[in-house]
Amino acid sequence: MSKETLAKTIREIPDFPIPGILFYDVTTLFKNPSALQELSDTLYEMYKDKGITKVVGIESRGFIMGPILATRLGAGFVPMRKPGKLPAETIEESYDKEYGKDTVQIHKDAIEPDDVVLLHDDLLATGGTMEAACKLVKKLNPKKVYVNFIIELKELHGKDIFSKDVDVESVLTL
Amino acid sequence: MSKETLAKTIREIPDFPIPGILFYDVTTLFKNPSALQELSDTLYEMYKDKGITKVVGIESRGFIMGPILATRLGAGFVPMRKPGKLPAETIEESYDKEYGKDTVQIHKDAIEPDDVVLLHDDLLATGGTMEAACKLVKKLNPKKVYVNFIIELKELHGKDIFSKDVDVESVLTL
Repeated sequence: MSKETLAKTIREIPDFPIPGILFYDVTTLFKNPSALQELSDTLYEMYKDKGITKVVGIESRGFIMGPILATRLGAGFVPMRKPGKLPAETIEESYDKEYGKDTVQIHKDAIEPDDVVLLHDDLLATGGTMEAACKLVKKLNPKKVYVNFIIELKELHGKDIFSKDVDVESVLTL
Repeated sequence: MSKETLAKTIREIPDFPIPGILFYDVTTLFKNPSALQELSDTLYEMYKDKGITKVVGIESRGFIMGPILATRLGAGFVPMRKPGKLPAETIEESYDKEYGKDTVQIHKDAIEPDDVVLLHDDLLATGGTMEAACKLVKKLNPKKVYVNFIIELKELHGKDIFSKDVDVESVLTL
C-alpha cells in the first residue's frame, strides 16, 4: 500500500470539533486491517535503528499506534495523561491553548536516564501539546528524544516550535 | 515469563482513585518490554483461532492492548469513546454507575454484519461499562462478540453480568 493509498483511508470531516476546522479522522484508517498493518510497518521502518527503549503515547489518540510501535520495537509503552488519571507519583507540564491552559502528566518513574524515548501522537497541528510533552519527558533526562506523528498539517508549520535537539518526523504530510 | 511473574509487574496502589479501593496500575506492566511482549503473546494465543476481524478498545486504557492485539490478529481496531469525541455518526449506550449515568459511543460504520468482534478493556470490576459496550456493539449485528480483560477481580463476580452468548475471558484473575 502506498502512502497515497494510506492517506485515502483517513476520513475528512468538515467543521469538527468547531466550524472552520477540517478534522482528519484516523478511525477509518485504524479499522482497516491493511491500512493499520501498513502504518505499523512504516513506523517500524522509521524507528527500528534508533535504539528506542520507551514509546510515550499522548492521551488518548496517541495510545493507539504508540503501543503497537512499542511492541514492534521491543520497547516499553508509557502513557502521558491528563491530570488526575495516573495513580502513582507524577510530574507535569502546563501549556497555553487558544482558550486557557492545559496540563499533561507522566509517572515520575516511567523514564530513566538510559532511555531513548519516542513520543507519539496522531496529529501535528500547532504542536503545543507535543512541545509540552517533550519538555516534560526531558525533565526525566533521557539520552535522546524523538517525536512522531501520523499526520502533519504542513500549513501550520508546527515543526518550527520544537527545539533543534528533538528529531520530529511524520508519516503523512497533509 | 509465567503469569505469576507477569502479575508481579502490576503495581498495587491503595486508596486510588478513592479511599478503600486497591488500584491495579498496569502502567508498570506496559513500560516493561518483556512484560508487554508476554501479554501481547498471551492475548494472541487466546484469540488467534477465533476469526476476529475487529478489536474494539474501551477509552482509554483499552486503547493500549486493543490495537496491539488487532495488528497481531490481522484485524482492524475500533475505539469506543466517551460522548463527543468521535467525529462521524455514532450510536450510544448509557449505563448506571455508582453516582449517576455514563455513556459510551461508537461510530455507526465501525462494525459490519460479517465482523467477529473482540471487545477489550484493562480491568473487569463490576462489568457495567463493558456490558454497555457489548449491548452497543450488538446493535450493529456482528456475527459473534468476544470480551477480554487483562485483569479480572474475582471477588466482584463481574462475569455474571454478561449474557450467555458472549465469551468473556481474562489473562489474570486477582
